[in-house]
Amino acid sequence: MKFSKGSRKSALHKVTEHLTGEFRTKQETGTLEKTIIELISYNEESVFMEENKPVDELLDQCDRKRKNWLNVDGLTDRNMIDRIAAKFDLHHLLIEDIMNVDHQPKTDELDDHLFLTLKMFYRFDEEKIDYEHISFVLGKNYLLSFQEKEGDIFSGIRTRIKQDNGIIRKRGTDYLLYRLVDAIVDSYYSVLEKIGEQVESIEENISKNPTVKDFQQIQKIRKEFIYLRRVVYPLREAINKLVKNENGFIDENNEKYFADVYDHVIHLIDSLDTYKDLTSTMMDLYMNTINYKMNEVMKLLTIITTIFIPLSFVAGIYGMNFKHMPELAWENGYYGVLAIMGAIFIMMIAYFRYKKWF
Amino acid sequence: MKFSKGSRKSALHKVTEHLTGEFRTKQETGTLEKTIIELISYNEESVFMEENKPVDELLDQCDRKRKNWLNVDGLTDRNMIDRIAAKFDLHHLLIEDIMNVDHQPKTDELDDHLFLTLKMFYRFDEEKIDYEHISFVLGKNYLLSFQEKEGDIFSGIRTRIKQDNGIIRKRGTDYLLYRLVDAIVDSYYSVLEKIGEQVESIEENISKNPTVKDFQQIQKIRKEFIYLRRVVYPLREAINKLVKNENGFIDENNEKYFADVYDHVIHLIDSLDTYKDLTSTMMDLYMNTINYKMNEVMKLLTIITTIFIPLSFVAGIYGMNFKHMPELAWENGYYGVLAIMGAIFIMMIAYFRYKKWF
Amino acid sequence: MKFSKGSRKSALHKVTEHLTGEFRTKQETGTLEKTIIELISYNEESVFMEENKPVDELLDQCDRKRKNWLNVDGLTDRNMIDRIAAKFDLHHLLIEDIMNVDHQPKTDELDDHLFLTLKMFYRFDEEKIDYEHISFVLGKNYLLSFQEKEGDIFSGIRTRIKQDNGIIRKRGTDYLLYRLVDAIVDSYYSVLEKIGEQVESIEENISKNPTVKDFQQIQKIRKEFIYLRRVVYPLREAINKLVKNENGFIDENNEKYFADVYDHVIHLIDSLDTYKDLTSTMMDLYMNTINYKMNEVMKLLTIITTIFIPLSFVAGIYGMNFKHMPELAWENGYYGVLAIMGAIFIMMIAYFRYKKWF
Amino acid sequence: MKFSKGSRKSALHKVTEHLTGEFRTKQETGTLEKTIIELISYNEESVFMEENKPVDELLDQCDRKRKNWLNVDGLTDRNMIDRIAAKFDLHHLLIEDIMNVDHQPKTDELDDHLFLTLKMFYRFDEEKIDYEHISFVLGKNYLLSFQEKEGDIFSGIRTRIKQDNGIIRKRGTDYLLYRLVDAIVDSYYSVLEKIGEQVESIEENISKNPTVKDFQQIQKIRKEFIYLRRVVYPLREAINKLVKNENGFIDENNEKYFADVYDHVIHLIDSLDTYKDLTSTMMDLYMNTINYKMNEVMKLLTIITTIFIPLSFVAGIYGMNFKHMPELAWENGYYGVLAIMGAIFIMMIAYFRYKKWF
Amino acid sequence: MKFSKGSRKSALHKVTEHLTGEFRTKQETGTLEKTIIELISYNEESVFMEENKPVDELLDQCDRKRKNWLNVDGLTDRNMIDRIAAKFDLHHLLIEDIMNVDHQPKTDELDDHLFLTLKMFYRFDEEKIDYEHISFVLGKNYLLSFQEKEGDIFSGIRTRIKQDNGIIRKRGTDYLLYRLVDAIVDSYYSVLEKIGEQVESIEENISKNPTVKDFQQIQKIRKEFIYLRRVVYPLREAINKLVKNENGFIDENNEKYFADVYDHVIHLIDSLDTYKDLTSTMMDLYMNTINYKMNEVMKLLTIITTIFIPLSFVAGIYGMNFKHMPELAWENGYYGVLAIMGAIFIMMIAYFRYKKWF
Repeated sequence: MKFSKGSRKSALHKVTEHLTGEFRTKQETGTLEKTIIELISYNEESVFMEENKPVDELLDQCDRKRKNWLNVDGLTDRNMIDRIAAKFDLHHLLIEDIMNVDHQPKTDELDDHLFLTLKMFYRFDEEKIDYEHISFVLGKNYLLSFQEKEGDIFSGIRTRIKQDNGIIRKRGTDYLLYRLVDAIVDSYYSVLEKIGEQVESIEENISKNPTVKDFQQIQKIRKEFIYLRRVVYPLREAINKLVKNENGFIDENNEKYFADVYDHVIHLIDSLDTYKDLTSTMMDLYMNTINYKMNEVMKLLTIITTIFIPLSFVAGIYGMNFKHMPELAWENGYYGVLAIMGAIFIMMIAYFRYKKWF
Repeated sequence: MKFSKGSRKSALHKVTEHLTGEFRTKQETGTLEKTIIELISYNEESVFMEENKPVDELLDQCDRKRKNWLNVDGLTDRNMIDRIAAKFDLHHLLIEDIMNVDHQPKTDELDDHLFLTLKMFYRFDEEKIDYEHISFVLGKNYLLSFQEKEGDIFSGIRTRIKQDNGIIRKRGTDYLLYRLVDAIVDSYYSVLEKIGEQVESIEENISKNPTVKDFQQIQKIRKEFIYLRRVVYPLREAINKLVKNENGFIDENNEKYFADVYDHVIHLIDSLDTYKDLTSTMMDLYMNTINYKMNEVMKLLTIITTIFIPLSFVAGIYGMNFKHMPELAWENGYYGVLAIMGAIFIMMIAYFRYKKWF
Repeated sequence: MKFSKGSRKSALHKVTEHLTGEFRTKQETGTLEKTIIELISYNEESVFMEENKPVDELLDQCDRKRKNWLNVDGLTDRNMIDRIAAKFDLHHLLIEDIMNVDHQPKTDELDDHLFLTLKMFYRFDEEKIDYEHISFVLGKNYLLSFQEKEGDIFSGIRTRIKQDNGIIRKRGTDYLLYRLVDAIVDSYYSVLEKIGEQVESIEENISKNPTVKDFQQIQKIRKEFIYLRRVVYPLREAINKLVKNENGFIDENNEKYFADVYDHVIHLIDSLDTYKDLTSTMMDLYMNTINYKMNEVMKLLTIITTIFIPLSFVAGIYGMNFKHMPELAWENGYYGVLAIMGAIFIMMIAYFRYKKWF
Repeated sequence: MKFSKGSRKSALHKVTEHLTGEFRTKQETGTLEKTIIELISYNEESVFMEENKPVDELLDQCDRKRKNWLNVDGLTDRNMIDRIAAKFDLHHLLIEDIMNVDHQPKTDELDDHLFLTLKMFYRFDEEKIDYEHISFVLGKNYLLSFQEKEGDIFSGIRTRIKQDNGIIRKRGTDYLLYRLVDAIVDSYYSVLEKIGEQVESIEENISKNPTVKDFQQIQKIRKEFIYLRRVVYPLREAINKLVKNENGFIDENNEKYFADVYDHVIHLIDSLDTYKDLTSTMMDLYMNTINYKMNEVMKLLTIITTIFIPLSFVAGIYGMNFKHMPELAWENGYYGVLAIMGAIFIMMIAYFRYKKWF
Repeated sequence: MKFSKGSRKSALHKVTEHLTGEFRTKQETGTLEKTIIELISYNEESVFMEENKPVDELLDQCDRKRKNWLNVDGLTDRNMIDRIAAKFDLHHLLIEDIMNVDHQPKTDELDDHLFLTLKMFYRFDEEKIDYEHISFVLGKNYLLSFQEKEGDIFSGIRTRIKQDNGIIRKRGTDYLLYRLVDAIVDSYYSVLEKIGEQVESIEENISKNPTVKDFQQIQKIRKEFIYLRRVVYPLREAINKLVKNENGFIDENNEKYFADVYDHVIHLIDSLDTYKDLTSTMMDLYMNTINYKMNEVMKLLTIITTIFIPLSFVAGIYGMNFKHMPELAWENGYYGVLAIMGAIFIMMIAYFRYKKWF
């Protein structure tokens, strides 16, 4: 297996690196040295959580009569993941999709479990966007979640299970999956919000005094939309598959929750498209404003040149050193020429006024 | 529920605020402090209306043998809405869609009621567009309507029910729904009309004397189209679901009414697309006119410069102070130079004439 | 019914007016003061025509065993139309579609009749396009046609029925419908032909000497395409419904005739799209030609300026009045300077030649 | 029938003439005065060909037990075509499609024969494209082909039938149809090849020294693509119908041959689209190269002007005739000014160097 | 068969040559003089490989009870290929698709074998892209592969079969097909990676100092995308057919492997589209930067001209030689004029500052 897979993955990895450029960082911050595994086993009556234990011990504690959420933070410990795969009978292609952090969002319905992979944003600021690769395996009474990096987005849900408020402990692991996916989709909104703020501030700048920097900002945002689209568009299809629920992995009563998430993804895509349209409107506006200023510059150049070049010519005439230039000897020659120049000046100004140049 | 929902809603709200920018106002005007609830219960024989009563009392008066229209103005009194939900067995996700004023138009067919949400414009002028979020729940012999703001668009229909003219009291609540939706879709036409007037006036300006302001106006209208499209396009799908009527919430005899509304929505979308095409034609026209004017400016600059610079050079020659410049001493040197200058001038003019520059 | 419908229609009417602008005229010419009704009742053996009779009398003469073509010119006499509706059991929504001259082309299959509405061009020249709204109701042995304005496009078919040549009297009213629709679709070709002539003449102008007027002409034609598309595109769907003939309103033997009309509509749409592509090619050509001319202007400006400004500078040097300027006293100083100037001139020319500027 | 059909055809003809412009020639060359009819009757054992005989005689010789290929060159002899129609029971709408040389490619499956019409290119050079309208009627053991103009593209197949090499005589008329259609589709490739050569030569010109002529060439090719698309796109649908072969006109063993032709049409369309994309790339390249040259021109103008205008001003100062100008009397005033001028000159050059202008 | 096929192929070949231009090289390097044929026959227990033997001998050694992989390098020996075709009952149209190196990727499901053809890149650098045409025929227990050129991409898989590690020898020839196709799709990623590096380096250049060369580079990459799209887009459809596996050529257990390849192709297309969007963003950036620099140039020109032309005019005034010019005789006339010039200069500078020109 080494040959083809090995070579592809390295190529694929580089492709993605190029595609995301400085956009996706080298994961210095969030990448885990160690893979952390945590089990939350619950039913309506009780809940217990286990962490920092050997993987085999945790796997043994999965009681198929209770609901088990096994959360794995970090994808570096291949051995641990292989053991989980053996326990839950996961195909090695599925494991590869879990490990491949560049994989696109998708839902696969397999024989006795459902596989869902998507991206989560956990940092988005002026400097960079950082997202991580998250995969879920939903089976009967168990939910496995694999996170690329350690994150705290699920901590709210963890607390909720512990405290037993809400209906989360009454329902199955499919409802838990909904809660987790819902939390992830929420994270997209804050990204969109950031972009919204950027768009707004650029738009204000452009309408006042557009600079090259604004244009570069617009281009940067357009690039961000290109990346976001890559992440959000396939998500629609993936969630839709959950809503259709052809193989019954989702309880019928919970279908409407995924339909709700689907609505949100549609809304996201729609907002993304709207922003994209807005940026193209902004680019038109920018271009036109720049153009307009340029025209003003050209007009000024033309006015000054057109007025003074003929005047200078007249002055040039009477600067000639011919012996016989009768005008030069006239008593009021000088004043006459000044008068003529004044007349030309006024005519020119009148002409430009008539043309509404200023 | 607080964590994920709360955070999303605030993010979502901000996103929408950005998207609509100054476009959608902060609802100072129409937002209700108090939620007003009103019940109109009618059948072919009689009608009674109740308002300003405690919600429980009103809900008790809903006689399932009569047709009941329960209209709620304002979405701030969560408690009241929860009671209505309990009475009519509405799912909490549905309630959230009613409360979420940024939700996109959609139709959902549930077990024993049909849910429809859409937007209504109630103000559209030079300064701002204001729309409100309206939701309907249609069940057997009852229709619930939830309005974000107090409005008078339904007052005509209310009067009609009271006076018992038309067929409105003879038919079921599905027909009432049609009448309300029809009134809302009508409100879109007046928005379109306003935009039509704006487009027309801009087009006239551009063909006469295009200014930057016209361009900004075009951009503003294009932005308005982007927003309108967001509201109207999903409406098509929503109404279409009503026309298809797969679960029989609409009486078969009333299907054609919704088909009629559907026709109007198609017409709206079509008009919107046509206007959009027109604005892009206008932008081309604007750009070209600006370009044309610029070319005129450049031509003038070129003509003046090209004529006078060589003439000035000639004058410059004879302004030199060399001791031995025979021409300067010639009797008619001055007149000769003037003649040469005149010749150059005429040749230049002839050249430009030949090139059809003016 | 007055409230919602009334207000919509006025809004809708204004929208359409804006959309069509000066394009669609105010119908001074063709609008009928009086609604004219005419009955042609025929079978294979005989034919009789009645006109200028009270509507009730005409309706009584409709013999359901013969084939009846009832043609109504003018849509102003609501009373007459209501009587026809009563006689043929037409729903009031259908009547509204007949009356609404802005309605888009569509086919509706109802319980016992088929409804088809479309537009017909009857005038298209330099100044304006005029089309009218035509609706057909096809039932068993009867065909109702409602024309917005009096026209003579159907007179050929009327004559044909009278003279009993062709197969028109042998076949049912569905065949008559085909003949009428076919005549209308023919009218589109002459519009397309007019536009074709305009496109051709503009293209010739542009390749010779493009002016702003040509550009405005292109824009005008593009606007015309936008309007035509609105009329022709939905027609495809409407005719297609006739071809599919799911409810059997068309005799199977006549289906191929409608398929033929459908082919023509497809050809129309295709020609429209081709013309549209051509106009965008023309715009590119126009823009480029204008651009090219501008470049020529700029080159001339640059050549003249670049040659004479250095020369003038040299002349300026020796126009200075310093006491101690040895060159001025040189015997051949003047001729030397002239030689230098000549050399600069020739070098400049050579440079521009080398750069292939002229 | 005369009225509507007559008027349409003339309009339709003019439309097509405009659309194809100088593109499609007036058919002086290939149009036949006389309609030539030729019968090739063959089976596995024998073949006989008849030409230049009266149509009725030829039709009588069609032996329904043999395979008959009746080829008609020229569409002017309506009488002859009507007789063929009578013999083979062709509907008059089908005859009209055969006669209408502007009809778009399509396949129609009728009761007992299949109708296929398409275009064939027989001349394509610098000056013009000439294509002809060809129609086929495939029935049991007979194939009718109607060519607008006399051509020799089928002569190879004719020879092949005569000489009985290949499998052509062993198979039915559906295989013959395949061979003819295949030969026609081949003719498209040579057109594409010509365009390919043009595109290549223009691309070379542009990268060297783009002129307006190159741009006009690109526009011409883009127009040619618009026309080609009109001919090739509907062909895909037409051939696809043959491949699907729903009514069994094609022998199942021969279906794969048509699938092969279909592959070629797809390849044609794909190549067409690729060329189209290439031309738009070329236009961008052209525009940019022109733009770049313009910028060079403007830079030169700016450099010369910016250097010499200040210098001339200095010279102008000391050309003034004030009585009291102390510098003028200085011993080294002249040299000082020259030095200052030299310093300005060097600074300006250094500035432009710094700005990397040359 | 010679006539039509011969002429088409030559035309088709030329078309493809134009399309790929200097892009696809004339295959000097990789084209084989000799066709090499190699048989790998294996089952779970044993494997033997045969090479450099006469084709008939090899074909005799194909044991239908073992799994046989027959790999043909080079497509020039038509005779050998015909013998293989006879042995495995391949239709001559299929053989033509194998031989036609310009054929587009596709999957055909035939009676007792499956045919798949696609392209493989084996060289892609600054100078050229080289891809080869590869076809597979998958039947019961045999897999035929036809390569246009000798390559070593399959050598890893060959070794793997020999060494019997992995599951490759346990599974059928359909799994072998997956491994080969997977290796080919991998080759696309390295091409994409190269392009990614180019895009990145151009983007850096543009943001610093855009030159015409950068623009030409962008255009070159855009052309490469056009070619890549031609190769990759139809591959999606071809692989999808394998995944659907309607006729059961693929073992059900192996379907998921092809689904995995399909995922990769989707990812490729998606990356291609993203890159395409990026290049258009880059073009906008390039254009704008160029434009911005041009504006700077024009501003400089305008500033210099606007400041010095009026000043020169003033100097010109006092350079006139009129006898009676009182200012000339004033004691401080010269200083006064210098003062006025200074004032004009400062005012102009202040104006430009106010206008924020520098």
